[in-house]
Amino acid sequence: MLDPVLARIDADMPHAIQRLLALLRIPSISTDRVHAPDCEVAAEWLVQDLRDMGFSADKHPTTGRSMVVGQGGQGDRHLLFYGHYDVQPVDPLNLWHCPPFVPQIEETPHGQVIRGRGASDDKGQLMTFVEACRAWIAVHGKLPARVTMFFEGEEESGSPSLIPFMEANRDLLKADLALICDTDLFDRDTPAITTMLRGLLGEEIVITGPRMDLHSGMYGGAATNPIRVLVRILSRLHDDSGRVTVPGFYDGVEELTPELRAQWEALGFDEAQFLADVGLSLSAGEKGRGVLESVWARPTCEFNGITGGYGGDGFKTVLPSKASAKVSFRLVGRQDPLAIREAFREMVRAMVPADCQVEFKSHGASFASVMDTSDPAFEKARTALSDEWPRPAAFTGSGGSIPVAGHFKTILDMDAMLIGFAMDDDLIHSPNEKYDVRSYHKGIRSWARILAALA
Amino acid sequence: MLDPVLARIDADMPHAIQRLLALLRIPSISTDRVHAPDCEVAAEWLVQDLRDMGFSADKHPTTGRSMVVGQGGQGDRHLLFYGHYDVQPVDPLNLWHCPPFVPQIEETPHGQVIRGRGASDDKGQLMTFVEACRAWIAVHGKLPARVTMFFEGEEESGSPSLIPFMEANRDLLKADLALICDTDLFDRDTPAITTMLRGLLGEEIVITGPRMDLHSGMYGGAATNPIRVLVRILSRLHDDSGRVTVPGFYDGVEELTPELRAQWEALGFDEAQFLADVGLSLSAGEKGRGVLESVWARPTCEFNGITGGYGGDGFKTVLPSKASAKVSFRLVGRQDPLAIREAFREMVRAMVPADCQVEFKSHGASFASVMDTSDPAFEKARTALSDEWPRPAAFTGSGGSIPVAGHFKTILDMDAMLIGFAMDDDLIHSPNEKYDVRSYHKGIRSWARILAALA
Repeated sequence: MLDPVLARIDADMPHAIQRLLALLRIPSISTDRVHAPDCEVAAEWLVQDLRDMGFSADKHPTTGRSMVVGQGGQGDRHLLFYGHYDVQPVDPLNLWHCPPFVPQIEETPHGQVIRGRGASDDKGQLMTFVEACRAWIAVHGKLPARVTMFFEGEEESGSPSLIPFMEANRDLLKADLALICDTDLFDRDTPAITTMLRGLLGEEIVITGPRMDLHSGMYGGAATNPIRVLVRILSRLHDDSGRVTVPGFYDGVEELTPELRAQWEALGFDEAQFLADVGLSLSAGEKGRGVLESVWARPTCEFNGITGGYGGDGFKTVLPSKASAKVSFRLVGRQDPLAIREAFREMVRAMVPADCQVEFKSHGASFASVMDTSDPAFEKARTALSDEWPRPAAFTGSGGSIPVAGHFKTILDMDAMLIGFAMDDDLIHSPNEKYDVRSYHKGIRSWARILAALA
Repeated sequence: MLDPVLARIDADMPHAIQRLLALLRIPSISTDRVHAPDCEVAAEWLVQDLRDMGFSADKHPTTGRSMVVGQGGQGDRHLLFYGHYDVQPVDPLNLWHCPPFVPQIEETPHGQVIRGRGASDDKGQLMTFVEACRAWIAVHGKLPARVTMFFEGEEESGSPSLIPFMEANRDLLKADLALICDTDLFDRDTPAITTMLRGLLGEEIVITGPRMDLHSGMYGGAATNPIRVLVRILSRLHDDSGRVTVPGFYDGVEELTPELRAQWEALGFDEAQFLADVGLSLSAGEKGRGVLESVWARPTCEFNGITGGYGGDGFKTVLPSKASAKVSFRLVGRQDPLAIREAFREMVRAMVPADCQVEFKSHGASFASVMDTSDPAFEKARTALSDEWPRPAAFTGSGGSIPVAGHFKTILDMDAMLIGFAMDDDLIHSPNEKYDVRSYHKGIRSWARILAALA
């Protein structure tokens, strides 16, 4: 059954590329209201493409950008595929080698690439699955399983409509398993199924000392300096071994299983190169933990921004009224973001002098996602991927957070499998975004294999 | 000799006010090149006024704003008076109740005030001395001592021409003692001679970690966060008792003499009110030191600005490449700013991880000024002031830095006596600057008395 599908994919690549280029020409930037009509054009393009393949498909309006949902295929096995058709803004435009919405095929030392905004994130990735389905239908007249396509148009602007839409359309979206194509290969030759995603707790602290900015000569030494209060607090959030000191922070954090640890060690990850690529040579993680473990499987506390007093050129002898910091915690395992938020705030309050004020702002709180890899679907997909790529597929973690995976679990009680074919040099969110033609081609073939394996 | 001069001052007040209003109408903002011609007009106004009084006076060009130097009077005793005719910018203009260069006399619950930019800082203060000389000459035909007037037009923009001009004009400027009128009364009824000024060392630290901004999900836990490095450094610059931990920092810091301590205690300074005025209730100074001592006679380390990562609204999960802080040290006694700079930088370097970079920028380094109050002129001036005001004059400190006092000492080997009549609610550098008519009137009378006392 599979071989003729793979052959069809190979033969149809020129057309598959033309279809992707057509989708890339639509400037569907979701954060910019000016491009709201373009987002609708992209949604309609997808609806039409699904209908051409024999899906029943519709655009579903929301208070923001529309959702696209299509239904195709039949059978006991029901898979949902998620992708997003919106893209990041393109600033700074002058750094692009080609107009971001005039996509092109370019020859590079590493092979052909498709250059343009959204080529990798996420239109190219989304189309790998669509093209795999198209090939199955073209060869066999039908899909090997029942498939729901679910495309969002607000992923790059925080997915404000996603939860309400899921809650209002449980019957439409419920399937056995969700497939998400928005992640990377482990490396050029090693495919990956991301089974661990870190959660995220975002907090902002604002310390107020004096009622107004003061002259540091007239008041320095007597008036409390909120920057001094703030740096003292922040400096106490890690101990000397790099562990986070918030009480109860490590509740729910588990050690890696020996199997997963062995699998990660077999990946041959080059810590020194990973750090050297960003100009560093020493890991800042907890003592005794490797870089991969620190980023994929350990929780962190990071300072994303700090502001207080005079930040311009030169010098100003101000003793400021306020200082603030943005602090984020990446969470793993069963760490409870709300409990950690409370413990963090209590710890901070205890370090603020009695005559200063502290204000907290919340910037989101989400649990980590840990997939249940005992579901046989994971091993089946891993084997399918291993058949396609030079090296065996790995179960990996991701230091980032992909909230939709958690929503599938909590709202639709559906596990998610994250498989993607992006490279870490795809320049997503940056000028000159690209997607390797190899990623696109082998990505389509990978999904064709996975459909066969999961059916 | 003195009484008719004081009577003349009282009688001439309406004209003295009109002369000050005329000077205030000239928008001599030194930091703004647009107002460079206005600064020259102010300098010419002063030259003409001095000539009208019988002084020989001239405008001396510099690479920036002109200096005004006038010579008058005769005798063995030679006094130099320093003031500045330039003023601060007036932004934000919409917060002014009257146009800043259309000065007005206003009735307030605390008496009449002269409202306008420069009314207090420093045109009003400068004119107190000029008017005292005018009255002496009007009554007696001459001054009781030899007087050099020295007016600068760049004080509000860092006095770039001051040192070169002093060095090139030693003979023109050298006198027995410098008088400076740019400071406050201790309180409404208590005049002050400022005998201690803190020095200032300004340093900027820039920490670079990763070569570029990173995604805190992808790198958080492995890549060094420069904000974390910076807050750790800053948090270690004070110990738990509030002392600065830079090695050798307290070398050259002396305890107050019992006499000065007793005098300050007699001032009845209200610590609680001083802090309450700015919304605070606890002193942030060294344990066991009062507020007045902390601000006037103890060295400090203050954080004037801190910047790193994302500072806008909302949240961005960035792990920044750089973080920086502006740090200033106020110095007392014989603390050596250059030695402290080196010790500070060495201490910081030792706390920076091996794969991060630290860059230092220097923002000035000046010694503290401590006047030699054993010079009998100080007691004579104190008695003269005590005769004019309801309460006896005090020798006070100032937490701020007035570099010109140090330059008189180092370049011209001349002590300086700082006597001023400003109130702490004069709103200098702010919208709606004012000078009490009482400050102006009693200030003129004070200088008339001091001239008699020092002659």
